[in-house]
Amino acid sequence: MISIDIVLLWLDLIGVFFFAVSGCLLAARKQFDFVGSILIGSIVALGGGVIRDIILNAAPPVAFTNPAYLAPPLLAALLVYYLFSSVQRFTSLLTLFDAGGLALFCITGTLKALTAGMNPVTCILLGVTTAVGGGLLRDITANEIPTLFNNRDIYALPAFVGAGLTTLLWHLGLFSGLTACLIAAVVFAFRVTAWRRGWYVPLAVRGWHRQGANPGVRD
Amino acid sequence: MISIDIVLLWLDLIGVFFFAVSGCLLAARKQFDFVGSILIGSIVALGGGVIRDIILNAAPPVAFTNPAYLAPPLLAALLVYYLFSSVQRFTSLLTLFDAGGLALFCITGTLKALTAGMNPVTCILLGVTTAVGGGLLRDITANEIPTLFNNRDIYALPAFVGAGLTTLLWHLGLFSGLTACLIAAVVFAFRVTAWRRGWYVPLAVRGWHRQGANPGVRD
Amino acid sequence: MISIDIVLLWLDLIGVFFFAVSGCLLAARKQFDFVGSILIGSIVALGGGVIRDIILNAAPPVAFTNPAYLAPPLLAALLVYYLFSSVQRFTSLLTLFDAGGLALFCITGTLKALTAGMNPVTCILLGVTTAVGGGLLRDITANEIPTLFNNRDIYALPAFVGAGLTTLLWHLGLFSGLTACLIAAVVFAFRVTAWRRGWYVPLAVRGWHRQGANPGVRD
Repeated sequence: MISIDIVLLWLDLIGVFFFAVSGCLLAARKQFDFVGSILIGSIVALGGGVIRDIILNAAPPVAFTNPAYLAPPLLAALLVYYLFSSVQRFTSLLTLFDAGGLALFCITGTLKALTAGMNPVTCILLGVTTAVGGGLLRDITANEIPTLFNNRDIYALPAFVGAGLTTLLWHLGLFSGLTACLIAAVVFAFRVTAWRRGWYVPLAVRGWHRQGANPGVRD
Repeated sequence: MISIDIVLLWLDLIGVFFFAVSGCLLAARKQFDFVGSILIGSIVALGGGVIRDIILNAAPPVAFTNPAYLAPPLLAALLVYYLFSSVQRFTSLLTLFDAGGLALFCITGTLKALTAGMNPVTCILLGVTTAVGGGLLRDITANEIPTLFNNRDIYALPAFVGAGLTTLLWHLGLFSGLTACLIAAVVFAFRVTAWRRGWYVPLAVRGWHRQGANPGVRD
Repeated sequence: MISIDIVLLWLDLIGVFFFAVSGCLLAARKQFDFVGSILIGSIVALGGGVIRDIILNAAPPVAFTNPAYLAPPLLAALLVYYLFSSVQRFTSLLTLFDAGGLALFCITGTLKALTAGMNPVTCILLGVTTAVGGGLLRDITANEIPTLFNNRDIYALPAFVGAGLTTLLWHLGLFSGLTACLIAAVVFAFRVTAWRRGWYVPLAVRGWHRQGANPGVRD
């Protein structure tokens, strides 16, 4: 039987690849050059995990010590360089790859905290931080309003669901490579369905409505 | 008599709440949704302390390990959601709550470094970093020019005064819950008076004057 | 003979000063005030090293514990304050000072990782992170598109060359104060020549061309 460590390493690397593609697609839209594409792909892909490892106060972050983590960003930049001009559905692709990364990272981030012996609340918070951290860095470095706060996207809730389910199944002794994939599927489906169907949550102030301009501020 | 640890925990939690309100108010103005309001409130409220704990190389930051720190951002988001539409004086409120957080965090941040045995200069720097870090993260993530650099605000100087006074009184053996509240009052009054009266410091280049457009740059 | 530690401390402090000047010049262009100039100078100058020390999981970053690191940002802010109005060649000066910081930090950052016993790949990554981290923070906090991603600048490649040469010479036993200065000269010349001559690398997508507007995106 395949060890859970191997499953997790692969889930983590695939998540890294998904986020790297989302970064390289943004680099393409922003007219960054190829080196910029590799760099922003790396920041998105590895940033969440680096933040997680720094918060856990682990040894140097795995992204810096395990060269395997450099392959996905390079691969992503090459794929976007050679394939993107014929694809063109920019926003949809970025959102789908980003959702894939989100689904995997909320699991692997939570697990890293669980195996470090943190309490359940810490594990969920750290899983969510890992999952949303890379995308937040992507949007900040590219000088955009982060998707995380955008009032037309449900982004953090799926990560909370995934981190919560991971923590629950772990404590019930039901966590395995199979259930990990199931959780990832649930998170991915939640994120993508919310985006496709235009689900949303209320605005930060009761009674305000979504619009381009800024309504009731008179100050 | 109440232990100083209890006083400090409460000052820290109140500071967290103040900064969280400032974040949720910015979320309201930026038309973020309710989840975005909780998230940016948490980032502002907990970010300065997380940076401080990471720099001190302490165990995982207290914001991740002590669930009590999650209550203030949730409370702040709920208050803004239910009460804000009837209040409306956006900028003033944000500045006042932000000043409250600044006044408390420059004390608690400095103290954490003092109790960790750092030298006075390190303690002052870390106090200021804690105090201004959350607001800086708030402005960066919301894609605004940070208040910290704005030429119409005196923001860092009150934090330096607070961190300096805390370090001085600590080494003189005069630091207590009472003097902590006095320092906070001084910092809050300095920040708010400077804002109300339009005090300012000279620009970064001698002889340049405050204006919207960019003067002497011809390059 | 002068110890290599002394050479490195001085190279590091000179790099800190160069980056601080670049930050203060940006503060001038952005119409920040004098305190904002000191702060953004400090963030640029010390940010890369703080990130490096946090990733290496060293004790508190040297910028917080060694007060000598505070002198260069103060000096830089004063120089810009008194001298800049008569100089005016803003962008050229900023780029030259930034290139000087880049050239020195890719060496000192790599060396700190080498002396901590990291593997060669980690050392190169950390050297590049140290070198580009401060400038990235400068551009993010000033709400600009980072130079690092700009399609008209070659910025990360010289840092990679410098970090790679440092790692190579170190393992060959040829690293010394003299070869350090030679590497810095190579990196500086590469960065400045690329900028002067308008060298560039391909865009993130094959077949797209540099332009203001955004070409083939139809999504």
